[in-house]
Amino acid sequence: MDILSIAGIIVGFVALAGGNFLEGGHLESLLNGPAILIVLGGSMGATFLQVPPAVFHRSMIIFIWIFKPKKFLLKAQIKKILNWSTLARKEGLLGLESMVSKEKDTFAKKGLQLLVDGNEPEVIRECLEVELMTKETLDLQAAKVYDALGGYCPTFGIIGAVMGLIHVMQNLSDPKLLGAGIATAFVATIYGVGLANLLFLPIASKLKTNVQSNSHAREMLAEGIVAIAEGENPRNIELKLTGFLDDYSK
Amino acid sequence: MDILSIAGIIVGFVALAGGNFLEGGHLESLLNGPAILIVLGGSMGATFLQVPPAVFHRSMIIFIWIFKPKKFLLKAQIKKILNWSTLARKEGLLGLESMVSKEKDTFAKKGLQLLVDGNEPEVIRECLEVELMTKETLDLQAAKVYDALGGYCPTFGIIGAVMGLIHVMQNLSDPKLLGAGIATAFVATIYGVGLANLLFLPIASKLKTNVQSNSHAREMLAEGIVAIAEGENPRNIELKLTGFLDDYSK
Amino acid sequence: MDILSIAGIIVGFVALAGGNFLEGGHLESLLNGPAILIVLGGSMGATFLQVPPAVFHRSMIIFIWIFKPKKFLLKAQIKKILNWSTLARKEGLLGLESMVSKEKDTFAKKGLQLLVDGNEPEVIRECLEVELMTKETLDLQAAKVYDALGGYCPTFGIIGAVMGLIHVMQNLSDPKLLGAGIATAFVATIYGVGLANLLFLPIASKLKTNVQSNSHAREMLAEGIVAIAEGENPRNIELKLTGFLDDYSK
Amino acid sequence: MDILSIAGIIVGFVALAGGNFLEGGHLESLLNGPAILIVLGGSMGATFLQVPPAVFHRSMIIFIWIFKPKKFLLKAQIKKILNWSTLARKEGLLGLESMVSKEKDTFAKKGLQLLVDGNEPEVIRECLEVELMTKETLDLQAAKVYDALGGYCPTFGIIGAVMGLIHVMQNLSDPKLLGAGIATAFVATIYGVGLANLLFLPIASKLKTNVQSNSHAREMLAEGIVAIAEGENPRNIELKLTGFLDDYSK
Amino acid sequence: MDILSIAGIIVGFVALAGGNFLEGGHLESLLNGPAILIVLGGSMGATFLQVPPAVFHRSMIIFIWIFKPKKFLLKAQIKKILNWSTLARKEGLLGLESMVSKEKDTFAKKGLQLLVDGNEPEVIRECLEVELMTKETLDLQAAKVYDALGGYCPTFGIIGAVMGLIHVMQNLSDPKLLGAGIATAFVATIYGVGLANLLFLPIASKLKTNVQSNSHAREMLAEGIVAIAEGENPRNIELKLTGFLDDYSK
Repeated sequence: MDILSIAGIIVGFVALAGGNFLEGGHLESLLNGPAILIVLGGSMGATFLQVPPAVFHRSMIIFIWIFKPKKFLLKAQIKKILNWSTLARKEGLLGLESMVSKEKDTFAKKGLQLLVDGNEPEVIRECLEVELMTKETLDLQAAKVYDALGGYCPTFGIIGAVMGLIHVMQNLSDPKLLGAGIATAFVATIYGVGLANLLFLPIASKLKTNVQSNSHAREMLAEGIVAIAEGENPRNIELKLTGFLDDYSK
Repeated sequence: MDILSIAGIIVGFVALAGGNFLEGGHLESLLNGPAILIVLGGSMGATFLQVPPAVFHRSMIIFIWIFKPKKFLLKAQIKKILNWSTLARKEGLLGLESMVSKEKDTFAKKGLQLLVDGNEPEVIRECLEVELMTKETLDLQAAKVYDALGGYCPTFGIIGAVMGLIHVMQNLSDPKLLGAGIATAFVATIYGVGLANLLFLPIASKLKTNVQSNSHAREMLAEGIVAIAEGENPRNIELKLTGFLDDYSK
Repeated sequence: MDILSIAGIIVGFVALAGGNFLEGGHLESLLNGPAILIVLGGSMGATFLQVPPAVFHRSMIIFIWIFKPKKFLLKAQIKKILNWSTLARKEGLLGLESMVSKEKDTFAKKGLQLLVDGNEPEVIRECLEVELMTKETLDLQAAKVYDALGGYCPTFGIIGAVMGLIHVMQNLSDPKLLGAGIATAFVATIYGVGLANLLFLPIASKLKTNVQSNSHAREMLAEGIVAIAEGENPRNIELKLTGFLDDYSK
Repeated sequence: MDILSIAGIIVGFVALAGGNFLEGGHLESLLNGPAILIVLGGSMGATFLQVPPAVFHRSMIIFIWIFKPKKFLLKAQIKKILNWSTLARKEGLLGLESMVSKEKDTFAKKGLQLLVDGNEPEVIRECLEVELMTKETLDLQAAKVYDALGGYCPTFGIIGAVMGLIHVMQNLSDPKLLGAGIATAFVATIYGVGLANLLFLPIASKLKTNVQSNSHAREMLAEGIVAIAEGENPRNIELKLTGFLDDYSK
Repeated sequence: MDILSIAGIIVGFVALAGGNFLEGGHLESLLNGPAILIVLGGSMGATFLQVPPAVFHRSMIIFIWIFKPKKFLLKAQIKKILNWSTLARKEGLLGLESMVSKEKDTFAKKGLQLLVDGNEPEVIRECLEVELMTKETLDLQAAKVYDALGGYCPTFGIIGAVMGLIHVMQNLSDPKLLGAGIATAFVATIYGVGLANLLFLPIASKLKTNVQSNSHAREMLAEGIVAIAEGENPRNIELKLTGFLDDYSK
């Protein structure tokens, strides 16, 4: 559970609402239906046009990673790989066959299967690298969907504001309404800049970091499986893999 | 058929028109001939000057990919490559000769021809890589034509707005016309920012993604053809190529 | 002759002048001596300071490429290389000696000379690659001179506008002159943004694309010459080189 | 101690406060509670949402490097490596065993341990490279937390300003309060732009440079340890390593 | 002597002052103490905080390159290398010993020393590459100090302007002072944008180009020295090195 994500959303919105309250502003003055329609509708339209269906679909699935990041426990993984290595030394690579069906992660499963089939280390490395790149590319594209939303929001905020100002300008005859009209127009700007900076851009960043640490973990896994295929001893494998741990995991 | 592209265009324009309507604005107040001339004419002029004729021509051709993306069905392609591989094992590489004329995709055709001619795997790889890079480079340049349009539109929107404001400023004597004049000037901004963000920039992004997945599919094809040339068995080829499938295609 | 470049310049300026006319503005109101001095003078000063003399000089020379792009006719080049290859097979590499003096392009001349001198293929490749990189680096730097101009123009447009506004603000006492003063100030913005987007930025882009296709053609030439040095047969050389053709050249 | 960092903070704030004072402004007019809440609260919320907990934690730890940069004294390190090299030549790699426990830096310790264990040079290089990359990636991510803050601050400054203007516009009836209201709104802009440019962005830059020179020093260490494993003589090792010294360290 | 640099500074400032004069503005109205304090003080404070002391120190030293670029006369260098090559062929590598002390450039000196010591070509290449990278990295960082100044200036210009506007807004009661107050506020914008675009950004660009051509020249030197170590004949060395000459130097 990524508490920091939840804290971030709460802190951001409370700060804005609180600041507005302390300045003496009313919350209602920040609520405006047409503005939210222009900003969110425009941004979603642009994003739909920009993104291939498969990528859009994937971006819905990985959304949950913001709160529940897909975690590869690196230390646990190293232990697992070392077990495989010991098993392979005792019973040969075929001894890993029972592990294949037990393994849940599809990437590790493929690696194990490649091992059991007795492929050359170089073939295993190539296969796993292509798999890793394909997965990473798709997930990064999916994370960038939120970047797209975050990029379009402020521009549609500006469009909303200018539309509002045009409306105001055409009714200059009644100066009493002038101020309120401009105020309404400005709300679109706040929606655009606020949604982008409080939600979409940080979300895109968190997802991209998550995708990259998934790749980091898969690289470690691939390195370990290739080392087993090369028949290296468990001691050396452990030495190599601990380099993938950052100072926290150690 | 990329339904999402069509949905995106509709959602975007409906959101803007709807927001404007709900705010009490009239659609006519957003229509302005000179503004569209300045924004579209200026952007097209700049883009003509920027782009070589061959690239501009290509950008017209790939425009249709926004709605009908050129799809390489990866799974079907793998099946095809495995068929070739089995055929080559049975009848030798010359047995693929009949396939060459049947193949429609020019890239796959060239690869097959290279196989049938009995070239070294390394030569085949090099030839296909050069071909892939040349095709990708041109198509990416063509996709970026829409990036160029999307980049120039807002700046010409600003030029249109400033021109309008200059016109207004010179007629300050009649305050009644002031508001309407400024409103007209602002319309150019909306055209510039709107066209860029509702159409040109998302289109450029979708085309670029499409070009990249074409390259991804061609890389798989090249990998498969080189593997046939190296005489690998169909089982191993399948293993290698399935790595190119993302989780959707599987 | 790159007709599109000329069309682009005409379309852009006509669109802006036409839009201004249709809005009821006068062309004279867009003419302003001090503004053009500030924008062009400032941008040129900044560019002089930024660019080494040799690069500036080169940028003047390649300017003509906008209208007369330096074209390497790839198909004709391939034919030429195949002729060399056949000649080398018949009469040995020394048979190419008569070609050296005939060749006009300095890059091809150097490659031929390296062949005739009987250098190792690896040495030829290295020499040509260094030559290619040096030429490309200089030409890209020269193309970026126009990027620099296009980057500075809008900022000096803003400086011109702010200077004008300062002047206006100090004479607030006479409201009649206010509007006209502000209008004059805005003209600098139009000059800055307009010159950058109608001329300098598109020119820089077109030149950069041209430089890159020159490099592409030289890569093909180098590949062909190295292949001759390696004694490959003309059939294989043709196969390799056609990959460099894009779909238009074929 | 990085005196320049402290000087930078003082110079920046004194310049702004001094400029304000000389213009006749009062410092109180720049103090505003709600504005600081919106700018800092919003930016921190966005950053919390953006950054994984481990990275955020690390960013707190490396903050101190701004004033006390983690320094690898390159010259001293070379001397240390040469000592190891001489020791290894005299007593064999096992002679380095006593050094392992003395060494404080975890990276150097791991390198020494790999040496003592008698691993192949290639294995040592790979292990140390993975370790270096993992450390560098995390530290760069941590440094970029301040980039994120510096990126969000100005946008929340704008949100604060627009919120303030909305509040002002709704109270146009009392023109006396108008000026003061707008003034208050502008303070948020100053907080946003000022915090970003006086603190967060420079801090991020300094930390990133620091992380990179740490990596530079670790590369030198790795190079030296691998050279010892390859049995090179101390003279050659020194020659290689002095290239890592810049002109100041020499 | 880089005349173009001096011309650039003069042209830029004359254009701005001249444009202001022609518009009827007074030069004094562009002079403002507090504004210059805020813009320059703020930018310098931010830059001090951003830059490590060693890099700041280096940036002071390379400043002079703007007017007196450090020139490696490539043709002269090739001649020198060919002399070394001939000498080494006649008297052996030890014959170069007398050259070492004569050589003034520290990079060439190190290369020669490595040659005289009879190191393997690969060792020489590695040593010189590390040396080149270390020097280039530091010099690029130093050049980017001016990029930093050019990046901070406009933002502190905006801060200065907003501070001035706040001051003005609080004194709305006296409309006569309004215009002059706003004018003063705008001066900060001109300082910020002007200093960045007339001085700091172009200076950073020129220095970066200079650093890169230094590296280009050092690469040539390294290539030549490695070729001597490999015992290549002077004719071939000349062929390889002339590729480093651009069309001007030839």
